[in-house]
Parts: sequence; C-alpha cells; structure tokens
Amino acid sequence: MSGHIDFDPELTPVPRNDGVDHAVTAARRVIAALLHAGNNSAAEMDEVADRLNDVADYLEKHAPTVAERMVDMWAGQGINRHNPVTGPENAIAPPLLLRSAADGSVTGVTTLGLPYQGPPGYVHGGVSALLLDHSLGVANHVAGTSGMTAQLTLRYRRPTPLFVPLTVTCRQISVDGRKIRTTGTISAGGEECVVAEALFIAVNVPRPGAAQ
Amino acid sequence: MSGHIDFDPELTPVPRNDGVDHAVTAARRVIAALLHAGNNSAAEMDEVADRLNDVADYLEKHAPTVAERMVDMWAGQGINRHNPVTGPENAIAPPLLLRSAADGSVTGVTTLGLPYQGPPGYVHGGVSALLLDHSLGVANHVAGTSGMTAQLTLRYRRPTPLFVPLTVTCRQISVDGRKIRTTGTISAGGEECVVAEALFIAVNVPRPGAAQ
Repeated sequence: MSGHIDFDPELTPVPRNDGVDHAVTAARRVIAALLHAGNNSAAEMDEVADRLNDVADYLEKHAPTVAERMVDMWAGQGINRHNPVTGPENAIAPPLLLRSAADGSVTGVTTLGLPYQGPPGYVHGGVSALLLDHSLGVANHVAGTSGMTAQLTLRYRRPTPLFVPLTVTCRQISVDGRKIRTTGTISAGGEECVVAEALFIAVNVPRPGAAQ
Repeated sequence: MSGHIDFDPELTPVPRNDGVDHAVTAARRVIAALLHAGNNSAAEMDEVADRLNDVADYLEKHAPTVAERMVDMWAGQGINRHNPVTGPENAIAPPLLLRSAADGSVTGVTTLGLPYQGPPGYVHGGVSALLLDHSLGVANHVAGTSGMTAQLTLRYRRPTPLFVPLTVTCRQISVDGRKIRTTGTISAGGEECVVAEALFIAVNVPRPGAAQ
C-alpha cells in the first residue's frame, strides 16, 4: 500500500555534503561551539561576530527574494527540506532523520547536545514537543492523510537525556472524517521518556506557487 | 510580594552587544540567511561552509571542557542564559524576552522568521509548544514554585503567523502539594492562536557544581 514508502528519499532528507546542506552542517557546529564557549571562553568574540556577520552579509546579498524562496522551498509534494526538525537546510534542526517502518510507523534516532538543554543534562521539554509534533505530522504524511495539529498532549514520564541516542517513533492511529489521531514516543535506552497523543484536522494547505 | 520581580534582570536576559551574545546574534543572522538562500542562491556554499567551519574550529579550540561549562552555565539561581527559548547565548532561541507583569503573569513579544516555519507562512506547531513550555516554567519561577513538566496540552485555535509580533503570556494557576498548574497563550493581533495547560511536579533539580 502507498503508506509504506520505505525508500522515499523525501521522507529521509539526508544532508548532502555539498551546497547549502554543507554550510548548514557547519552552522550547526558554530551554534554548538558558541554555547560550549560561553562568556568565559578565551575566544575573541567580537572578532567571531564580525566573521559571522560577514558570512550573513554575503548570503543575504546573493539570496532570492522571500516570495521567490517561499515558492522554491515549498516545491514538490514530499517532506520539505527547511523545517526545524528534519530539515537539512535549517541549522536549528538536529536534524532528525525519519524512516518509515514496515508496520506503517515512522522512526528516527538522534542525539541532542547543549543547544537543546532544558534541566541540567536533559533535553528541554519543549524540544521534545517540537520533535514529536513534527514526527507525528510525518507519520500522517506517510499514512496518506495529513492535517494541521488541533490538540497535542505530551506526558513526560522521565527526563530525556542529552548526549545519548534518542529514538522517536510515531504512527497514525485512526482517521474519522476530518479527525486524525496520531501517537508517538521518545525513548532512551529502551525506556519511554515522552509520550505524545495528537488530534489533527485534515486540511489541504496550499503550497506557495502551487496551482489552486 | 516576592512573586512580582518586575525588574529582575535574570528574568529578561537582554542580549548584550559584546561577548558571546554579540557573536550569537550574528549566528542567528547566518541561520536565517542560509534558510533564505537555499540551494538556488548564487552564493558559493562550499566557501561559506569553510568559513563557518573555521569559526567553529576557533571556538572549540578556546572552549572550556563540557564539565566546566556545565557548572558555569548553571551558576546562580535565576533564569539561565543558554536555553533554546530566551537564552542570549543560544542561537536557536529567537530569543524571547520575558517580563513579569503586576498581575503575576510573565509576558513577552517576539517575531519569528523562516527558521521557525511549519505550514507555509505559519509558525511550526512544535515551535509554539517550545515557546510555551519554556514560558510556563518561567511563570512558575516567578511565582516561586518551580517543577518539571509532567503533562503539557496544547490547543491550536488558529494558525500562528510568521513575520508579525506574537505575544506569549503565561501564569501559574495553582500549587496543590507537589502539583503545579500553569496556563499560557500565544496571541497575534489580539487573537489567541495557541492555548497551553500544563501540570508540573515540584522538584528541586540540583545545578551542576552547586552544594547538594
């Protein structure tokens, strides 16, 4: 059935080693290194700021307009490449790489560092919510009926650790008219840390530039 | 009463124009510019990657150890400077600046751009969850009884727009033994977009390096 897209490259946009993905991977290193440095680092931070502002100036000078970029970034029908969870073009994204399993679920493994910290040594509860909300949406996409999140409930069973592999698994449970129910978990070392239940409402959100 | 900390500088860690904050502000420009550029930009992305990797190398060479940094980043008792929502040292954070109001709530205004996108032109539902989960925690801090998130429910009433000022408001509703109830909203143009209800469990999480 069409829900089992085991090898859909757009479900797992693996970062490329060239183009913008390559630069975004480097930007992730900068984000983490700045957080590791803090204000007690011996680094000359004004010089670092100048170098980063030079890069931003250069990129902005060569960028398309926002309207052009909105059409470009939403081209195609698959999982986009710019979102803040799986997007290889978004330095905020860990990125989480999701794959579909034979049972219809989607799953991925990621290890989060200091930029994603909530309590000391643990993942921020809101970051867990971000990973789950997005992965629930991908599970809907794979199952063939997508929607907008209407209600999301997260239960935090135990703290989610930084620096160890986390497994995110989501699956669509039911579609009843426009109501889509989807559940997911984040686990570490085989133990459930966070459980999500969501109600989505099926809507077709037009993509910029797409024929209406 | 002690809950009304109208001028607590640690509640509103306004980014400084020097030190690591300055470099992090520049890193935010890079994140946004990379996402605006995409793969159809005329920029030489391999050159950009080299320049960013050079910055990361430099920062890593001068950084304290993770153990040292964990003590440093958790020093003091106020709202930390490294978290992914309000943290001026975290390039992932918009950052949201929260202030406490005379009625005991905490509130802040932020405008989110393309790195925080979910549906075309709208904020990612998981990003809204991240902003709310964190701000609920700050509301608990201001009210004087903090805890870990046990359950978080988000209701998405209407899409939250990118590129316009969003108001995040949270307040602690009740403390019953170890159970803390806290609610919050994200509004745009006076209309509620997302409503959060949370149950926190009061716990004293020791900070690294703090006397136990």
